[in-house]
Amino acid sequence: MRIGRSEERLQASLAVITRLLAKHHVLEALTHRQEGARRDLLEDLQHRQNLAELHARCRTMHPADLAFILETLPPDQRELVWTQVPTDRKGAVLVEVSEGVRQTLVDSTPHEALRDALRPLAVDDLAYLEGVIPPEVWSEVSSGLDAGTQTFLREAAAFPEDSVGHLMSEVPPTLRETSTVNDAIAALRAESALDDHTTRLYVLDGRGVLRGVVALTQLVTSDGMQPIGTVMSTDVVAFAPEDAATNAVKAFERYDLTAAPVIDDRGRLIGQLTVDTVIDQLRAEASRSALEQAGLRGDEDLFAPVLDSARNRWPWLLVNLGTAFVASRVIGAFEHTIAQLVALAALMPIVASVGGNTGNQTVALVIRGLALDQIQGTNVRYFARKELQVSLLNGLLWGGVIGIVAVAFYGSASLGLVMAAAVLLNLLIAAVVGTSVPLMLHRVGRDPAQGSSVLLTFITDSMGFFLFLGLAHLFLV
Amino acid sequence: MRIGRSEERLQASLAVITRLLAKHHVLEALTHRQEGARRDLLEDLQHRQNLAELHARCRTMHPADLAFILETLPPDQRELVWTQVPTDRKGAVLVEVSEGVRQTLVDSTPHEALRDALRPLAVDDLAYLEGVIPPEVWSEVSSGLDAGTQTFLREAAAFPEDSVGHLMSEVPPTLRETSTVNDAIAALRAESALDDHTTRLYVLDGRGVLRGVVALTQLVTSDGMQPIGTVMSTDVVAFAPEDAATNAVKAFERYDLTAAPVIDDRGRLIGQLTVDTVIDQLRAEASRSALEQAGLRGDEDLFAPVLDSARNRWPWLLVNLGTAFVASRVIGAFEHTIAQLVALAALMPIVASVGGNTGNQTVALVIRGLALDQIQGTNVRYFARKELQVSLLNGLLWGGVIGIVAVAFYGSASLGLVMAAAVLLNLLIAAVVGTSVPLMLHRVGRDPAQGSSVLLTFITDSMGFFLFLGLAHLFLV
Repeated sequence: MRIGRSEERLQASLAVITRLLAKHHVLEALTHRQEGARRDLLEDLQHRQNLAELHARCRTMHPADLAFILETLPPDQRELVWTQVPTDRKGAVLVEVSEGVRQTLVDSTPHEALRDALRPLAVDDLAYLEGVIPPEVWSEVSSGLDAGTQTFLREAAAFPEDSVGHLMSEVPPTLRETSTVNDAIAALRAESALDDHTTRLYVLDGRGVLRGVVALTQLVTSDGMQPIGTVMSTDVVAFAPEDAATNAVKAFERYDLTAAPVIDDRGRLIGQLTVDTVIDQLRAEASRSALEQAGLRGDEDLFAPVLDSARNRWPWLLVNLGTAFVASRVIGAFEHTIAQLVALAALMPIVASVGGNTGNQTVALVIRGLALDQIQGTNVRYFARKELQVSLLNGLLWGGVIGIVAVAFYGSASLGLVMAAAVLLNLLIAAVVGTSVPLMLHRVGRDPAQGSSVLLTFITDSMGFFLFLGLAHLFLV
Repeated sequence: MRIGRSEERLQASLAVITRLLAKHHVLEALTHRQEGARRDLLEDLQHRQNLAELHARCRTMHPADLAFILETLPPDQRELVWTQVPTDRKGAVLVEVSEGVRQTLVDSTPHEALRDALRPLAVDDLAYLEGVIPPEVWSEVSSGLDAGTQTFLREAAAFPEDSVGHLMSEVPPTLRETSTVNDAIAALRAESALDDHTTRLYVLDGRGVLRGVVALTQLVTSDGMQPIGTVMSTDVVAFAPEDAATNAVKAFERYDLTAAPVIDDRGRLIGQLTVDTVIDQLRAEASRSALEQAGLRGDEDLFAPVLDSARNRWPWLLVNLGTAFVASRVIGAFEHTIAQLVALAALMPIVASVGGNTGNQTVALVIRGLALDQIQGTNVRYFARKELQVSLLNGLLWGGVIGIVAVAFYGSASLGLVMAAAVLLNLLIAAVVGTSVPLMLHRVGRDPAQGSSVLLTFITDSMGFFLFLGLAHLFLV
């Protein structure tokens, strides 16, 4: 019953499945070697036993744990385990598995089986999967649902992927202001079970307009004779279906929500957003942004085929190559200077590197500030001034240190001075660029986490080379 | 009642406060200019009106919104607004505000006022703030609580900061297996209000050992005559207080939890973990890791004093300088070669840069894989082989492209060949290092997000210079 045990159980399952797969692998290899010869009967038997044991394991595990294990397996083994997952559990596993892996699993499942796998799913899980299901399977599955649910699904699917409308789920049974607390509980008891994530019930008027919200905690602590209208809360944070999911996540964090109503522009309740969806969204955002900052697609599967993985990296590589060539041309313009004083070639990467490092720290602060809405039109100037002062301070201090080290190595005071000046200037440029690049990307509606760092490094590299070699050209040779 | 409106209201409040602060600023400046002269009576009056309006605004805003506004303000204005926040709301604001800002607000509040500010807080909020409250204020505040709560607070505070025990809150009223659903509801009605984040109630035996869990949804849908023992669920994910908060967050995600019991090693219930805490933890982890990857302290305040900000960047700058100097010495060793063919100086940063770029993509994949537990002992070798193949493919392709461009610029086929070979080799090194560095850091118990990128760039830079200049030395001059 402890999480410790739950984690241990997961690890144990993983170990068993790995062992079964290893046995399977050895048998396959043996069979392969005896190609042409007849398969040994005994081997064949053991083979089947292995698969039966795998199948049994897959039947008892929590779908989230199965999803986890599938994600850790390389494609061929993943495929093998997936075929052993019972059809009625495949739907739940598809919901839990990460985006990149989900598509490969769907692609490798015959339409017939996929249809059966989706049948047992709850409506919001179905809606969640809609994007990856082949249209003909989707229409077959959805035609089996009742009319109201079909409408809900169609409406939810019509909203863009990162909107509240796309993520909302169906509302639990609604209440009227005039009924009493006891009436409400009696009505709930007559209904089927409530979804586990229900934390509040919604109070509607005759036209379906949201009047207020009753938390389950209020329902079980209030006097039974009280009318719902006096128990409900009317100070409610609600969302429009068009609202961006990111903003909804922030509102859940800020106001500590566990569920919130989604209403249309006439105030009618059309769905709700629950905290489990919000947590998934928050995690997805965090992990996507980390990959995208490195120039990868946010949903890259760890074990995607080599060619797909290689291609996924091309756009960024190309951008990087382009900027590196420009920086190289800056150096090329000073070849004459370098030929006269080769020490410059060894020292110039230091100037570029220190600038890039400092600038990227500023970029990280600005990106976080923008993500948390802490950077506003009102305080940008203050922040930029502060970053400039930090760079001035660090430039004087560390520029000086670098200059002294350069003198120690090359015995030239003027080389040390040029080095120190170039570092100081490049740090100031890094502060300005590190502040303005993410802000500009943000202003034109792009994600500052993508691209800020390349653009910054490009400028600090080129300027680092230019400043150092330019100053050297003026004062040293 | 819409989030749209809520966001607008927040922006409107921010605008009003900014306007008031601007007026205040102008008045201060005027007063300053007339130094020595007497302050104009009218100005003085307007001054006071401003502050009164500010005070009124601060009284009606949601504490989370106030916290948000305080975070966006530079220190002097933040100070001014903070003094205008009514004392009885200051506690709630402290809970909501980010770590860096919280300490500055606490430091600027007199002990007397701080004590009064903390009085109205709930116990788990108090526990959350304990680390930043001066000890003498803390002992005064906690002595006002009842004995059981004092014990809970002492115990929770004794657990390390990123453990479940530190984050847990007090449990809601508990149930017995033998009482009926109706009894349970009657007992809840007799108690005071339930905390808003209660989603499940805990069933204990006579010794306080957890027997099961009843969701509020089950309580309101089950037949009133049924005993709790038959309604409760016994398949419960529970935590030990020593469990790492990160693992608890993952369990909440994986099993879609809204609350979970915390039990000691004898199975006795000692607290619960609720989803609002988990969301805060998840967001804090994400935002901390983004800053720490850039070598900043995770809680850096956007508007920290210049000297503090500058110092916050020194460790990373120093590491960066050290690695840059080593790379510079690698180039220094080939000064003789460069002197003979200055084009090398212009081309060498390209080799280093492409290696760093590719390696950092691998690092990002490994860090995410480790964070989500997708990389396991069983699949590391598969992943490493895949990354090597990707690098081989991209090295052949892009190394070739780079070689051709080099030939186009410098008209030397052998220079192009050396360039292509160096790029290919450096990409292979980047794949190996990009996979192994974060894995090694992870294995020795360090956070791979911190340091992986510097170490990698260090190696790809040095090796890039070494491979290119070394090959050039062998084959070109």
